[in-house]
Amino acid sequence: MLGELETGPDLAADLLHGSLGDPSLTSMNFLNEITGRYPDAVSFAPGRPYEGFFDRASLHDDIEAFHEYLRTGTGASEAEADRALFQYGRTKGIVHGLIAAQLRADEGIDVDPESIVVTVGCQEAMFLTLRALRADERDVVLSLSPMYVGFTGAARLLDLPVLPVSGGTTGVDLDDLRETVRRARAAGRRPRACYMMPDFANPSGLSLDLPTRRALLELAEGENILLLEDNPYGMFHDGYGRLPTLKALDTARRVVYLGSFAKTVLPGARVGYVVADQRVRAADGTGSLFADELAKIKSMVSVNTSPVAQAVIGGALVRGGGSLAARNEPLRARYQRNLARVLAGLQRHLGDRTDVTWNAPTGGFFVVVEVGFPVTNEALERSAREFGVLWTPMAYFYVGDGGRRHLRLSFSLLTDEQIDEGLSRLAAFLAAEDDRTA
Amino acid sequence: MLGELETGPDLAADLLHGSLGDPSLTSMNFLNEITGRYPDAVSFAPGRPYEGFFDRASLHDDIEAFHEYLRTGTGASEAEADRALFQYGRTKGIVHGLIAAQLRADEGIDVDPESIVVTVGCQEAMFLTLRALRADERDVVLSLSPMYVGFTGAARLLDLPVLPVSGGTTGVDLDDLRETVRRARAAGRRPRACYMMPDFANPSGLSLDLPTRRALLELAEGENILLLEDNPYGMFHDGYGRLPTLKALDTARRVVYLGSFAKTVLPGARVGYVVADQRVRAADGTGSLFADELAKIKSMVSVNTSPVAQAVIGGALVRGGGSLAARNEPLRARYQRNLARVLAGLQRHLGDRTDVTWNAPTGGFFVVVEVGFPVTNEALERSAREFGVLWTPMAYFYVGDGGRRHLRLSFSLLTDEQIDEGLSRLAAFLAAEDDRTA
Repeated sequence: MLGELETGPDLAADLLHGSLGDPSLTSMNFLNEITGRYPDAVSFAPGRPYEGFFDRASLHDDIEAFHEYLRTGTGASEAEADRALFQYGRTKGIVHGLIAAQLRADEGIDVDPESIVVTVGCQEAMFLTLRALRADERDVVLSLSPMYVGFTGAARLLDLPVLPVSGGTTGVDLDDLRETVRRARAAGRRPRACYMMPDFANPSGLSLDLPTRRALLELAEGENILLLEDNPYGMFHDGYGRLPTLKALDTARRVVYLGSFAKTVLPGARVGYVVADQRVRAADGTGSLFADELAKIKSMVSVNTSPVAQAVIGGALVRGGGSLAARNEPLRARYQRNLARVLAGLQRHLGDRTDVTWNAPTGGFFVVVEVGFPVTNEALERSAREFGVLWTPMAYFYVGDGGRRHLRLSFSLLTDEQIDEGLSRLAAFLAAEDDRTA
Repeated sequence: MLGELETGPDLAADLLHGSLGDPSLTSMNFLNEITGRYPDAVSFAPGRPYEGFFDRASLHDDIEAFHEYLRTGTGASEAEADRALFQYGRTKGIVHGLIAAQLRADEGIDVDPESIVVTVGCQEAMFLTLRALRADERDVVLSLSPMYVGFTGAARLLDLPVLPVSGGTTGVDLDDLRETVRRARAAGRRPRACYMMPDFANPSGLSLDLPTRRALLELAEGENILLLEDNPYGMFHDGYGRLPTLKALDTARRVVYLGSFAKTVLPGARVGYVVADQRVRAADGTGSLFADELAKIKSMVSVNTSPVAQAVIGGALVRGGGSLAARNEPLRARYQRNLARVLAGLQRHLGDRTDVTWNAPTGGFFVVVEVGFPVTNEALERSAREFGVLWTPMAYFYVGDGGRRHLRLSFSLLTDEQIDEGLSRLAAFLAAEDDRTA
C-alpha cells in the first residue's frame, strides 16, 4: 500500500482482472499481515514443513547425485548431463522417470512416465489442469468443502466457478456431489472435475475411507467427471494401514493426480507434478495424452520447470533408491508426535468443556477446533494481541457460508514447548471469548 | 500422439481450452519435431545461449555466494539464510535488491526493489502482466510485428487478442501504432499495452533508435497505454554506444520492464522478473504498486519462484559486484564474432545474388534473410532432408499474413565450423529452391 499518490494513479484497479479483489487473497493477506505484526506469538497458522532437517550440504549432494544418475543411469556424457541441468529443456520435465518410479514404490500408482508433467509446485499443476478444462464460460469445477485456497485462487484466476460439495461425515457427501453435478448440468453448465485431498486434507485434516474412495470413482465414471486428487500429506500417516490413493484405485483414467515435493523433499525447490494419463481425441480423430496438452499450456506459462530445481528433487529420489519413504521417516515421526501432543494438549486444556470439540486426524498437519463463538478476523486479532497465539479461521476455506465457528491448528513447524505454550494460550483466549459473548 | 484408442477417448479436444489449437504452438512443435528427425543438420533454429561456459562448480559457488551474502550482507543467521533458500518464501522473490542494483549498474534503470517481482523466467513475467491487464473481453494488447511467440502464446492462453503493429523501417511504424490504438478504441475495445523488444529483437534482430524510443514514450503517454519492454539481448551489443532502454528513459511510469537471466546467467535457473512501478488506485481511494498486484496473481500460478534457483542468480549478481557485464564479456564477444561470421558468410555465398537480401543487426542472436520463394514448412522440410540445414520460417512470428519470404537465422549456439558449413548448405538450398520455382 502506498500513502498519497502525488501524481494520480497510473492504473485503475477496476481495469485489472477481478481475481485481484478475491476474498481468499484478502484473507491470506490479513493472516500474513497479522503474523508480521505479532512476531512473538505462537503461530498455529502456517502449513510450512518442519525446518530442522534442512541441510545445505545435502542440497549440493542431491544436485550432484542427479548429475551422476544422468551419466551412469541414462548414459549421458558429462557435457550432456551438464546441459540437462543448465540449458532450457523438455517442457514436461527431466525427472519424470524417477517420479514414476517413486509413485510405484511409495504410492502403488503405476503410470507411464510420459503421462507426467513436472511443474512449478503443485500450484502450477492445478493451474494448468484448470486452464485446459475451461474451454468456455459454461465450464465449472467442484471441490470438496472446506477447500484449499490455492485451488480456489487458481480457478478464480481463470474465471472458472467452483461449486462446493459438502464434506458431510465421511469427508464427502456423495449425494450432494451427484446433485451438484446434476443441478449444474440442468442449468446449462458443464461440470468437468471435482477437486479433493483424500488424505489428511488441508484444511480439515480428514481422510476418506476406502468404501468412499471406491464410491467416488464409480460416481466419477457414472457422471462423467474427472477427479483431481491432490496428495501433499499422504506420506505423513500413522504407520498403520495407509489407504490406497484414488489414482492407485483408478482403472478408468478418471483421476488426474496432483503431486508435490514441497513437504517430502524441499519447499524451496518449487517442484510438483501432474499425472494426466487421460487420452484426448481431436475432431480429426487423432489422439494425444492429456499430459501433452498440459505441457503445451505450460510452455506459455513458465516454459519449463527449472532443471536445477528438478535436479534437487531428482537427486533426492536417486539417493532414496526411487523412494522417499526412508528420507521422510524422521519427518513422519515428528509430525505424528506433534499431532499426538496437540490432541493430548487440547484434551488437557479443554477436555472438560462440552462447548469445545475438535477432530482427531490420524496424520497430516492439521486439526480443526469447533468453538461456541464466531471465529472472525476480529477474534484472531484479539487472540494475537491479548494472548499471543495465532491460528487460521476456517471460514477462509469455504465458498459462501461455512466454518464460522471453527479454527484450524497447524502444528508442522512447532516445537514441543511451542505446542504446550500455544495451547495454554489458546485455552485462555477461548475462555476470554466466552466471557465476551456471555 | 497415440495410435489407436482402444477404449475411446477420455476427453474430447473441443472441450479443452482453445489455446491448445493455436497455430503458434503447432509451428513450434513442427520445428521441434523436424529438429529431432534431422539430428545431423546444422541448425540455425534454436535461440538457446552458448553452452561452452557452463560450469557446475560455478553453480554450487553461486548458491554458496548468495548464502554468504544473506549472512554478511543482510545480517541473517546461518539458520535464517538456510531457511531463505529452502522454505517457501516471499511471493515477490528474494533477489529483488540485487536485481535493482544490477539494473542501475548495467541498464541505467533506477527503480525501487519493491517494484520488482521475481518470476519463473520472463515467460511468467509476461503471463502475470497480461493476466492483470485483461479485466474482461474488451481488453486487447498490441505487439510490434513480427513478434515473439512466447508473447502471443501467453496472450492466447488468456483469450486476449493481440493486434499487430507494423515494424516499418525503424522497427516500429508509429503512425500504425497510433492508428491501431484508435481503431481499437473506436470499435469498443480497450488497448492496454504494446509489447516490444527494443534491442536486437527476437525474431527481427532490429533495434529501435533513440528518437523512436522517445517518440514511443510520448505516444504511450498521449494514448494512455503501457509499453511492455522485453530485454533479453541488450547485454549482447557491439561495444559501441549502447542505447538506453525505454525504462531508463521512462519518467512517467509508462513502461513495464520484463527481464530475463536465461541469456546472461543460466537458462536452467528459469529466473526472470518484471519491474512494475505503476501505481494502482482502487475505487475506495487506496493505492498499491502494480508489482504487488502481479504478486497476488503469481501466488495463484506458482506461489513463488524457487529460492534455490533464485540463489543461483543471486550468487552470480553478488560475485559480479552487482553487475553482470564482466561475467558476460566472453559471451558478448562470442556472439559478436558469430554475428560477424554469419554476415560475412552470407556476403561470400550470396553477395552476388540480387534476389536475396538480409538485415545487419549490430547485436543479439538473429539475422533475417529475405528470399525469392515462399518460405513454408515444406521448404524447411526440403532444406533439412536434402541439404542438412535448419532455420525458422519468419511466418511463425506474424499474426495473420507476413514473413512469407523470410527466414530467421539464429547463431548463438554454433561454432565457426558449423556457421561456415551451415551457410554453404543454405546457399545450396536457396539455389535448389530457385530451380524448383523457376
